[in-house]
Amino acid sequence: MSFSPLIQDLIEAFRCLPGVGPKTAQRMAFHLLERDRDGAEHLSQALVAAAEKVGHCSRCRTLSEAELCEICSDTRRDVDKLCVLESPVDMLAVEQTGGFNGGYFVLMGHLSPIDGIGPDDLGLDKLFERLESSQISELILATNPTVEGEATAHFIAEQIKHLDIKVTRIAHGVPVGGELEYVDGGTLAHALAGRRALN
Amino acid sequence: MSFSPLIQDLIEAFRCLPGVGPKTAQRMAFHLLERDRDGAEHLSQALVAAAEKVGHCSRCRTLSEAELCEICSDTRRDVDKLCVLESPVDMLAVEQTGGFNGGYFVLMGHLSPIDGIGPDDLGLDKLFERLESSQISELILATNPTVEGEATAHFIAEQIKHLDIKVTRIAHGVPVGGELEYVDGGTLAHALAGRRALN
Repeated sequence: MSFSPLIQDLIEAFRCLPGVGPKTAQRMAFHLLERDRDGAEHLSQALVAAAEKVGHCSRCRTLSEAELCEICSDTRRDVDKLCVLESPVDMLAVEQTGGFNGGYFVLMGHLSPIDGIGPDDLGLDKLFERLESSQISELILATNPTVEGEATAHFIAEQIKHLDIKVTRIAHGVPVGGELEYVDGGTLAHALAGRRALN
Repeated sequence: MSFSPLIQDLIEAFRCLPGVGPKTAQRMAFHLLERDRDGAEHLSQALVAAAEKVGHCSRCRTLSEAELCEICSDTRRDVDKLCVLESPVDMLAVEQTGGFNGGYFVLMGHLSPIDGIGPDDLGLDKLFERLESSQISELILATNPTVEGEATAHFIAEQIKHLDIKVTRIAHGVPVGGELEYVDGGTLAHALAGRRALN
């Protein structure tokens, strides 16, 4: 026995979501059909609208349906600092710290030769063009602290050596609230090497 | 800072799914926008098709877009046994045991005076009509072993006392593969009371 075709198709369609297996997909489908058809219609419309209209900000490459995203069109931001990130959610994370008021450039990924992702796929030509043509004094490389993120950061730093721009990388170290006992060796080594004077 | 309106709306729309909080909704939205727009379009179409066309089987009340569901339209099923369940997924679970070849009646819920769910909402009039007009000899009450499920089963049994139909309830007992040590007292008491001769 299987459910009717439209129900089966809906269960199958939910499988495209990250972390959703067969049981969860089934639970989602029946939840919507039994209890929340309005929610299903709303989700359907939101999906098609976003999939059709959301593109990339022409300046920082983040996801946005507008030509310029909210931050790129904000004239009160510092124009001399630029922060390079891997994804739009990283941008939200940095914004939420409240400690940065410059511009962003979102790579939408990281260098990964195995997956065939090279500098062109990350819009690096656009980034270098922007660095050459504007008065940016500091470039903050805030890619993820993973092997690929580090490689991407080093590649970018290498490529713009000839420009008179200060290039910085976010600090590695022990997370706030963490315990030394549970911090991995690599992180602790970075934390020691990057120690700062207190007085 | 927030994401652009269409992205925010999509994140919000995902919240209608069971077990999806703000972070998961965000991850789902970005996964689809960054990596799987075809999946998003497919999910959108599947949602609207299912929400518009899936109704209830006119005979057993399970969810189906056809007038009669797959099982109700199957002429090879036993017509003298009827199994009452709370939901379509329970029907799948019973079918998968392979141990039942009769018909089903799906209540799509259970009696719950607090939520205002009474006999009419569960289609009990339809069930009683079917019991009176057909040659059903056994009615198996397979509602969930919860307080509401038990109450619903007892209510149904009480209402059809006057009919010449054998009414049974699925057995309570220790689950196969379980350990007595971890079985709750109520279940163990049921398992003892319902003990069966081995020889």
